Amino acid sequence: MLTYKKKYTVPYYESDANGNMKVPSLLNVALQLSGEHSFSIGVSDDWLKETYNYTWVVVEYAMEINRLPRFTETITVETFAKSYNKFFCYRDYVFYAENGEKLLTVSTTFVLLDIETRKVVRVLDEIVAPYKVDKVSKIIRGHKYQELSTSECIEKIYHVRFNDIDQNGHVNNSKYFDWMVDPLGFDFLSTYVPEKIYLKYVKEVLYGVDILSRVSRDGLVTTHEINATGNHAQAQINWRKK
Amino acid sequence: MLTYKKKYTVPYYESDANGNMKVPSLLNVALQLSGEHSFSIGVSDDWLKETYNYTWVVVEYAMEINRLPRFTETITVETFAKSYNKFFCYRDYVFYAENGEKLLTVSTTFVLLDIETRKVVRVLDEIVAPYKVDKVSKIIRGHKYQELSTSECIEKIYHVRFNDIDQNGHVNNSKYFDWMVDPLGFDFLSTYVPEKIYLKYVKEVLYGVDILSRVSRDGLVTTHEINATGNHAQAQINWRKK
Repeated sequence: MLTYKKKYTVPYYESDANGNMKVPSLLNVALQLSGEHSFSIGVSDDWLKETYNYTWVVVEYAMEINRLPRFTETITVETFAKSYNKFFCYRDYVFYAENGEKLLTVSTTFVLLDIETRKVVRVLDEIVAPYKVDKVSKIIRGHKYQELSTSECIEKIYHVRFNDIDQNGHVNNSKYFDWMVDPLGFDFLSTYVPEKIYLKYVKEVLYGVDILSRVSRDGLVTTHEINATGNHAQAQINWRKK
Repeated sequence: MLTYKKKYTVPYYESDANGNMKVPSLLNVALQLSGEHSFSIGVSDDWLKETYNYTWVVVEYAMEINRLPRFTETITVETFAKSYNKFFCYRDYVFYAENGEKLLTVSTTFVLLDIETRKVVRVLDEIVAPYKVDKVSKIIRGHKYQELSTSECIEKIYHVRFNDIDQNGHVNNSKYFDWMVDPLGFDFLSTYVPEKIYLKYVKEVLYGVDILSRVSRDGLVTTHEINATGNHAQAQINWRKK
């Protein structure tokens, strides 16, 4: 198993009002790292595009957070591919404090998308071989999401902005989290921090639409949905007092 | 004159749909650098807060852009304090390509804000002395902004989100630019790039409000205003074909 790692110091602009590193920034830094990992072993995103016209797309995150990195803190982020099967590739990212304390883990499920047809394609062994990772037949079961309680949910509309769109031509996947948690409001978001996050991308969001973010809350567990033309993403977040 | 500099490689998540580094990201990286500069000479933002309960606030930007940095490009960012007077401190940031080509310059005007009263205070010599910068009596004239043509402007409402708020308790100044240019739409923003940007902050935006972003266009010059409780910011941008 190949591990790729990098140090990172949390800048001002990746920190929220509480001085914690923002969750979308965690995901950004994580995905940037695996992009560099792929580049370093000769299977970069550019190579994938030029050779097959494919791109990697995250379909699900599961995060376990012991503590969020803090503004000015220097952390180490590690990533490694875990296994793959016919359609899915599994990769973890682990964030460590300078003293070696494990801060959080992000487990991800990737698929390969054909850029032209926007459809998921089979994982070719030759694309994955350089990661030195085992092919498994088993498909890992994703998180089972609860139904959103539509009778008591909070909802808010968000515009998709130009700067939300990435070079894949759709909304960057880190943006969904902001839409999901923002309706909870300042008081909630400065009292609680996420402890577990399960986030599933169902359908990409393109430029030009407004999305509806809906949240229902049951104690310290919130259920989230992003809707525009149908359901685009869903999530469950377990919170704890800051 | 003390110059502080740092290399920076443009990550995926700081790049827009065209592969250019986002303007808000340029401002973020710039301000982070001067924060590190201050820290390195013993007058950090924390020191300023603990000693005087003051904070630095940008009141105006003037940017000249020859070329925006590109995704994966490694650039060098330099910053230095230029001069100061009773109320204003002037600082430049210069972005260079690896071959030494000057990409862009950001000229900024800072004031010191009393955190408790939220009022601008006089610049104390002892705060500025470590930057080894000249005190001048002259107040540099800011850009003269055109009136917005309200009869033909495009306007759009944006929510202030939790993750727009920084540790100063107000909207991070890099967010205004997104609000300002977004109403111009995808086609405009993927056809033109900014060449000159003048941006003035009039009044801070706090959490809980919706802002109205208004833009009027006269050829390749756009005029912008951010309104909520009065006028919060204004800008002029000169564009050129990409």
